[in-house]
Amino acid sequence: MADYVNAPGRTHLFVPGPVNIPDQVIRAMSRQNEDYRSPAIPAMTKILLEDVKKIFKTTTGTIFMIPTTGTGAWESALTNTLSPGDRVVSFLIGQFSLLWIDQQQRLGFNVDVVESEWGRGADLDVLEAKLRADAAHTIKAIAIVHNETATGVTNDLTKVRRLLDTYRHPALVLVDGVSSICALDFRMDEWGVDVALTGSQKALSLPTGLGIICASPKAIEASKTAKSRRVFFDWKDYLKFYKLGTMWPYTPSIQMLYGLRAALDLLFEEGLDNVIKRHNRLGTATRLAVEAWGLKNCTQKEEWFSDTVTAVVVPPYIDGGEVVKHAWKRYNLSLGLGLNKVAGKVFRIGHLGYLNELQLLGCLSGVEMVLRDVGYPVKLGSGVAAAASYLSNTTPMIESRL
Amino acid sequence: MADYVNAPGRTHLFVPGPVNIPDQVIRAMSRQNEDYRSPAIPAMTKILLEDVKKIFKTTTGTIFMIPTTGTGAWESALTNTLSPGDRVVSFLIGQFSLLWIDQQQRLGFNVDVVESEWGRGADLDVLEAKLRADAAHTIKAIAIVHNETATGVTNDLTKVRRLLDTYRHPALVLVDGVSSICALDFRMDEWGVDVALTGSQKALSLPTGLGIICASPKAIEASKTAKSRRVFFDWKDYLKFYKLGTMWPYTPSIQMLYGLRAALDLLFEEGLDNVIKRHNRLGTATRLAVEAWGLKNCTQKEEWFSDTVTAVVVPPYIDGGEVVKHAWKRYNLSLGLGLNKVAGKVFRIGHLGYLNELQLLGCLSGVEMVLRDVGYPVKLGSGVAAAASYLSNTTPMIESRL
Amino acid sequence: MADYVNAPGRTHLFVPGPVNIPDQVIRAMSRQNEDYRSPAIPAMTKILLEDVKKIFKTTTGTIFMIPTTGTGAWESALTNTLSPGDRVVSFLIGQFSLLWIDQQQRLGFNVDVVESEWGRGADLDVLEAKLRADAAHTIKAIAIVHNETATGVTNDLTKVRRLLDTYRHPALVLVDGVSSICALDFRMDEWGVDVALTGSQKALSLPTGLGIICASPKAIEASKTAKSRRVFFDWKDYLKFYKLGTMWPYTPSIQMLYGLRAALDLLFEEGLDNVIKRHNRLGTATRLAVEAWGLKNCTQKEEWFSDTVTAVVVPPYIDGGEVVKHAWKRYNLSLGLGLNKVAGKVFRIGHLGYLNELQLLGCLSGVEMVLRDVGYPVKLGSGVAAAASYLSNTTPMIESRL
Amino acid sequence: MADYVNAPGRTHLFVPGPVNIPDQVIRAMSRQNEDYRSPAIPAMTKILLEDVKKIFKTTTGTIFMIPTTGTGAWESALTNTLSPGDRVVSFLIGQFSLLWIDQQQRLGFNVDVVESEWGRGADLDVLEAKLRADAAHTIKAIAIVHNETATGVTNDLTKVRRLLDTYRHPALVLVDGVSSICALDFRMDEWGVDVALTGSQKALSLPTGLGIICASPKAIEASKTAKSRRVFFDWKDYLKFYKLGTMWPYTPSIQMLYGLRAALDLLFEEGLDNVIKRHNRLGTATRLAVEAWGLKNCTQKEEWFSDTVTAVVVPPYIDGGEVVKHAWKRYNLSLGLGLNKVAGKVFRIGHLGYLNELQLLGCLSGVEMVLRDVGYPVKLGSGVAAAASYLSNTTPMIESRL
Repeated sequence: MADYVNAPGRTHLFVPGPVNIPDQVIRAMSRQNEDYRSPAIPAMTKILLEDVKKIFKTTTGTIFMIPTTGTGAWESALTNTLSPGDRVVSFLIGQFSLLWIDQQQRLGFNVDVVESEWGRGADLDVLEAKLRADAAHTIKAIAIVHNETATGVTNDLTKVRRLLDTYRHPALVLVDGVSSICALDFRMDEWGVDVALTGSQKALSLPTGLGIICASPKAIEASKTAKSRRVFFDWKDYLKFYKLGTMWPYTPSIQMLYGLRAALDLLFEEGLDNVIKRHNRLGTATRLAVEAWGLKNCTQKEEWFSDTVTAVVVPPYIDGGEVVKHAWKRYNLSLGLGLNKVAGKVFRIGHLGYLNELQLLGCLSGVEMVLRDVGYPVKLGSGVAAAASYLSNTTPMIESRL
Repeated sequence: MADYVNAPGRTHLFVPGPVNIPDQVIRAMSRQNEDYRSPAIPAMTKILLEDVKKIFKTTTGTIFMIPTTGTGAWESALTNTLSPGDRVVSFLIGQFSLLWIDQQQRLGFNVDVVESEWGRGADLDVLEAKLRADAAHTIKAIAIVHNETATGVTNDLTKVRRLLDTYRHPALVLVDGVSSICALDFRMDEWGVDVALTGSQKALSLPTGLGIICASPKAIEASKTAKSRRVFFDWKDYLKFYKLGTMWPYTPSIQMLYGLRAALDLLFEEGLDNVIKRHNRLGTATRLAVEAWGLKNCTQKEEWFSDTVTAVVVPPYIDGGEVVKHAWKRYNLSLGLGLNKVAGKVFRIGHLGYLNELQLLGCLSGVEMVLRDVGYPVKLGSGVAAAASYLSNTTPMIESRL
Repeated sequence: MADYVNAPGRTHLFVPGPVNIPDQVIRAMSRQNEDYRSPAIPAMTKILLEDVKKIFKTTTGTIFMIPTTGTGAWESALTNTLSPGDRVVSFLIGQFSLLWIDQQQRLGFNVDVVESEWGRGADLDVLEAKLRADAAHTIKAIAIVHNETATGVTNDLTKVRRLLDTYRHPALVLVDGVSSICALDFRMDEWGVDVALTGSQKALSLPTGLGIICASPKAIEASKTAKSRRVFFDWKDYLKFYKLGTMWPYTPSIQMLYGLRAALDLLFEEGLDNVIKRHNRLGTATRLAVEAWGLKNCTQKEEWFSDTVTAVVVPPYIDGGEVVKHAWKRYNLSLGLGLNKVAGKVFRIGHLGYLNELQLLGCLSGVEMVLRDVGYPVKLGSGVAAAASYLSNTTPMIESRL
Repeated sequence: MADYVNAPGRTHLFVPGPVNIPDQVIRAMSRQNEDYRSPAIPAMTKILLEDVKKIFKTTTGTIFMIPTTGTGAWESALTNTLSPGDRVVSFLIGQFSLLWIDQQQRLGFNVDVVESEWGRGADLDVLEAKLRADAAHTIKAIAIVHNETATGVTNDLTKVRRLLDTYRHPALVLVDGVSSICALDFRMDEWGVDVALTGSQKALSLPTGLGIICASPKAIEASKTAKSRRVFFDWKDYLKFYKLGTMWPYTPSIQMLYGLRAALDLLFEEGLDNVIKRHNRLGTATRLAVEAWGLKNCTQKEEWFSDTVTAVVVPPYIDGGEVVKHAWKRYNLSLGLGLNKVAGKVFRIGHLGYLNELQLLGCLSGVEMVLRDVGYPVKLGSGVAAAASYLSNTTPMIESRL
């Protein structure tokens, strides 16, 4: 049953998560359980916690690796820092920010929603107005996605920090970095982020299973008085076991730990900055292909272009869902659906994680054939040519092979 | 670094979780990510949900497979069925019931704790008194562990049901089946359990990563009005996606789904009743060995004997922690520590999951050597002989090989 | 050290062997050793032997799966059917036929070599002349490669049979099917082939390790009197153990057997004829790309075009070896070198095994970038467009996903 | 079908080959094919060849890692050093020496067989007589198994060397080290061995697939004039490719190379001498158990005791084959059958490869139960006690865990 949808050759996985896992990671995870109370697992965990800090670019943050998903990581970020009724300024710019806002509301916060048209970034002018008006500091936190996965929009977090500094506003900055961290430039300490989080199945290129949260000292301080009820997601329990040295309040996935070790080793070997450059290269190439096809990027301005996912707007006579279905049914190509407001109007190409140029070009070539199949008059090879032309000028030699 | 504690040959894993994973499951999980929004994963999920019901022995229950641990499954069981302030009768008989009670208190319930000496089962006489006295039905739920992993005590759940029936009491019955389900006889429907839960890394013999919850129609009904704040653990979101047919409110672990498929296939091939018999066989053999060594079982009465874990009481002059440490350091044998009140006083042998007779005998032989090493005058071979004598009379032929 | 040449993303493996292994096969092989004398392995082997016959399209042949490579399979074919001094007509059309001829000479046969220009097929007119002249039947065997991997030339085996029939010549027909069987149309019984052989790492898409030989009843008969000294490769030992039912004269690789099982399951699920069509599709697409690039196929006539490997002739001012080196060093793309007479003059694209359209298009796009990098003025996208245009018209829907 | 003989828990694999593979090795081998003509594989191969020398304790030898089995390695040793008609003194002491002699005869050598009763070692007095009588040096080689796997007999190779030195005899010494190298003390250079060989599935603890041969300079010299016909097994081709730096005359198994790398890493981490001590410990423990059961070791004298396999003589009223069958059918325990002359009279316990104390004790406990099941009045626990008593005094602490 597991393979009843089998097709020859590799599945071309280009959804914006879960993403392609390196073979090294699959191998590292192909493993027995171990006693997590033996000395080995805490020792390993300690090193992991230190190394994970590097992907957040923090030296002062505290890492929590919770056996959960991004949704759980969101919940952990909120409930540990806020109390019911607290005012949170939150930006609605696509399906994932919408879901986070829904969570914030259900957890009892007073959510002050700043909405943008889907395809645009967070409206930071509105934020400025709110901060200016909030001399009383009723705003306890600003919740913002770094990269909205539904529309392929990257927000400028440095501006958020600048505004807070300008108005000397003490609000916490909570960042959903699910489709950004390890792929886009992100700097916890430099940018004054208080909580940032990601999920293992995104740019870290692991299976789903770890919600990874990084909390600033200020966030840790806030967690001591935050009144949201929580146990599973409570940082306090982690901090207690960190202190004890046994590290885990409950059973971690041994396999995910070894997988994370392997994933970090690969990241560091390539160099985090090179990884970010690679994502920029693949993102740019994708956008050039979209342009060559005569299609529009859902992202309305260059300043918001996302290097991890591109939402491609289809003409009104084409159903974006049909593109995705057809890609899977004929070419073994997995693309992302348009969600909610942009359902049917876009399809998405995820280009994050452990991926290289020729994989992307194969995907783009597949998209061209799919577009033609569903009735869009694309010139076959046009997008690939545009992308390849750029990649041929920018792809570096593989350092380990020189 | 991952292997810095390497030792020749297999690690003998006899902690009561995480347990030994079948090779078939490790293989099934050694796999790429997939788009969980393609038709394949929902189709697979639907079949899994039906099959998981069988391990709870239910036809009317609803299954939730949440990417979390047992602790998260606990939280899901409580927050979906209860509102802050609700009165819960809870039995404290060891470290895991204690942790669950701590969770209940932190989540804001009014917990009516019934404590027993560690090594004894839940005091159901006290429960009876409370039910008798509760004509007003202030008790909203009874929370009980089926098997206390810290002391190796199995509670008689049928008695709980009988008492509720006798007093026509509508309280929900919430059961922690973490170290029982798939190993001990458990019957959701027949016993009138309202919520039962387990973790993937226990008798299901998977890695950590799935909290599996089964809710009766009455529990589902209760979830509609329960006021505990929850999002990640909210059944409502699952029920919504079940209805939509896309099945997942957020990204599941593809690998865990395939692993679960393989684990269930193995369980059904062996036959759930045969699996339970095998656990009884291994539990009995272990107890006979303990007796032969002249040591005491932490479990005070036969009625509470656990077929999944045995806590062995060491003489006062021996440190149970030393037994565990030594086993790992000299014989590559992982045993369970004594926890909290019984720390140092016991060590634990986990005999649950995908395990056979000769594996257990190797472990028992190792325990004998360890005991001698730490200064207990055990007769080498005595426990193995007692266990083997029993196993030699009771182990069935392997059906597939006849 | 194993990974010191690591590069992000997948390696694009387009050498004509070893080829891409399906994940299902890698999983099936990720496994412990087993006692090959238990009843399980012989039972499994018997079924495998029957199933392997299907890939040779034979019902009368006998299969030998020898733990060796294609070179060993060659030796087995020769030494079991011929005696030193026997006259063998052999066709030299490229590096692999050359190596086989070298082996034939070193094993003491009287090799009558028929040479063609590299890039042309076996000269069957010369064969006809020799057969006509050989009333005395001094020719004991005809040795021919079905597909010359060095030049991408497929010989017409039906013609060989026709000639033998015409001249009522009893010579054995020994066929190297290393880069053809499971990818090109091959019919042991219908074409009257006496020995055919392949290696596991070719179109079967396994690791190296099995030399698979199929012998006709006439070949088996010949083996009874053939005087070439042999033990490891002797069919007699296999036949003896087949008769005993224990099947193996010496230890097989347990992992390769399970891998072969998985590989055959995939082949049969897709359908052998569909597999052959897929190879034709990918081969045709590759040739169209080559044409679009303005380059020449090493294969001189369409009748010899190979659907498993294409040797692309580079202009004199380009070094084919440089193309291969550069592809690997910049784009993580493995192409085949030109060998011996065509060293430097060609590079090769292997398009056999478990491979699909988008993988090939990714490769072709990579080749375009490489060509430009090494100084050939290719129009980026041109080959991909030509290939995609053809594929877009011919690729069937994936049956399992309809 | 692959799993139709499935049984719960681990299979206890105690045949003398193929043996238990470390998880690290299985993981390392769970991998895609690679282009063996890229720079990576030759670079890796060179290091492997150097490291493999260490397991032979040679600095002057040349290693050949041929994709074959032990039988192929035998053939390689013989055909590269000898010419048809050459006189070889060969010792028949059990089934494997018998098979090697059969091969020697079929390859056309003049085999001078020295037979011993099965259970005894090679009769070196007869060798001495032959050497003394051979002033003309008609003896070209002495072929001897270091450890006869069928009877559990280890020959003293130092004595062979002493005799040759005494009589200044130039005969080559060809050693089958299949069930000894990496487990028993073996010293190529110090003992003046000319060709030694093993198979990957024995003490190296890999899958079947590599025949590993080590040739002394004198053996290499002999290979230049040896007239046995050979191609696949010809060292000349390897030497040519070693010189070219591309290392492989034909396609190696990429997976086996990575597996070998991992296996060697584990061996060197433990320390080859510690590995040998571990085998001695497990061998001794097994023999103590046999004694405690009141059974006889097939090996007639202590000087020949084998630390890799023990052949246990059963009483006349017991069928050794029944022991093996029953172990597999009831306890998931794989033991070795008695072969040929000792068929039915013995069963064998293989205790070589990646194995530790508790695994062996589990096996011994299983053997006790089997013996009782088939009607031998064994005292359960007796063998385990004897073995554990010894192991408890001799097993070192695990260094990496101190």
